Amino acid sequence: MAPMTEQTFDPVIENAAARGRIILVCEHASCAIPDRWGDLGLSADQRRAHIAWDPGALGLARGLSQRLEAVLIHAPVSRLVYDCNRAPDMPGAMPLRSEVHDIPGNAALSAAERLSRTETVYLPFHNALHGLICRQIARGVRPVVVTIHSFTPVYFGKPRRVEFGVIHDADPAYAQAIVTAARKTTRLITELNAPYSAADDVTHTLRVIATPYGLPNAMLEVRNDLIATPEAEVAMAEILAPVLNMGLVEIQRQAKAG
Amino acid sequence: MAPMTEQTFDPVIENAAARGRIILVCEHASCAIPDRWGDLGLSADQRRAHIAWDPGALGLARGLSQRLEAVLIHAPVSRLVYDCNRAPDMPGAMPLRSEVHDIPGNAALSAAERLSRTETVYLPFHNALHGLICRQIARGVRPVVVTIHSFTPVYFGKPRRVEFGVIHDADPAYAQAIVTAARKTTRLITELNAPYSAADDVTHTLRVIATPYGLPNAMLEVRNDLIATPEAEVAMAEILAPVLNMGLVEIQRQAKAG
Repeated sequence: MAPMTEQTFDPVIENAAARGRIILVCEHASCAIPDRWGDLGLSADQRRAHIAWDPGALGLARGLSQRLEAVLIHAPVSRLVYDCNRAPDMPGAMPLRSEVHDIPGNAALSAAERLSRTETVYLPFHNALHGLICRQIARGVRPVVVTIHSFTPVYFGKPRRVEFGVIHDADPAYAQAIVTAARKTTRLITELNAPYSAADDVTHTLRVIATPYGLPNAMLEVRNDLIATPEAEVAMAEILAPVLNMGLVEIQRQAKAG
Repeated sequence: MAPMTEQTFDPVIENAAARGRIILVCEHASCAIPDRWGDLGLSADQRRAHIAWDPGALGLARGLSQRLEAVLIHAPVSRLVYDCNRAPDMPGAMPLRSEVHDIPGNAALSAAERLSRTETVYLPFHNALHGLICRQIARGVRPVVVTIHSFTPVYFGKPRRVEFGVIHDADPAYAQAIVTAARKTTRLITELNAPYSAADDVTHTLRVIATPYGLPNAMLEVRNDLIATPEAEVAMAEILAPVLNMGLVEIQRQAKAG
């Protein structure tokens, strides 16, 4: 077991006093690599590329947090150190390779190193998120979990046409309602379960924290060229905040009807 | 939010260095009611009855822990304060009534009190269990989660014939293998999903900690008159340890074959 005194990289919680139903989660908010992991053998360009984080996702999440009165939790460390949206035994948790890039600093990780990253990055993130969820539940609120991601416009050389993807895990209701609202009220090219889906093991956070408590949930994916500047992040938050609210109204209507 | 300085009632972890695949969980190990909750308005007899804990379960779990080289985690507080096998919004988490008994100390709980019990009992328990699970996964082990319970021989005046119940959540494989092994090698009256089942919302721990990680799991229920003395607890551990091991061999065989 890792010594309990090892420095942890705790998630950041913003807008903690917010009283909206939605809890926003941003696992890939940061490309920071703490000193103890050096540069993971990557160039400066690689360490700023989409393999290291979801560019624009944190800015978008902050814009949504303000507009929805939603608490926001985000990880402070690059997903190349530990991807908080992956279980410790998934290949993507501490990836050897991401898209076309080898990650030299993740080659041949010892069990002790995998354990240390799990202890210092993954567990603090999920324990804090678990706390946020359960505190709302204990107060009598049924929170709605929304994870905020961005994806690269070109993947393995292939352009992606979709602009806004909404992914669900076991319960599709909220994701479907968001897609319907986005198609009705925005010009975004919107798809359900694109550019990937739960079958690609990308919904770990939803599986761990939303499904067991029966909470409505969705994973949002925005193409990162659409949120490439602070102004674009704000503009996208302005578009998506009402979409998330419309989806919420719809699932509340369904819950009453059902 | 409850002050972070509030005293927590952390779970006890025994046999922490054990290297077996099984992690034993005992949510109802204790009938202790910490001073801040007084006697919850109950008589001394009620506070020792099955409504307050699972008599014999901790002794059985300790016997299994030794025989299976399994880490054991158990809650230090009565389930009448907080039932760690229930989500914070389930009626059974801080029950108003249990079988034929009203629980006066749980009448008209404020949101602040529900929150405080969630913060001081439930979250420490599940965060510690989550840590145990993820540390094993990070090391490359796929742990198997087994929760240990006992049930009353007479419930609402009706005798229960079953002696050993094995309950599953989403993945039935290990529970079925245990039932098969118990029927083959013991004289216990053994039933799958008895005296109740996941449909009765009794599998919260399995749902939160085993299902999202795809871990084999089972909930064991032993009729408490069969483990009413320290000697009987040991004798039952001696019977059930090989049964759990046979079940493990069977699911490992299935995993290889599949």
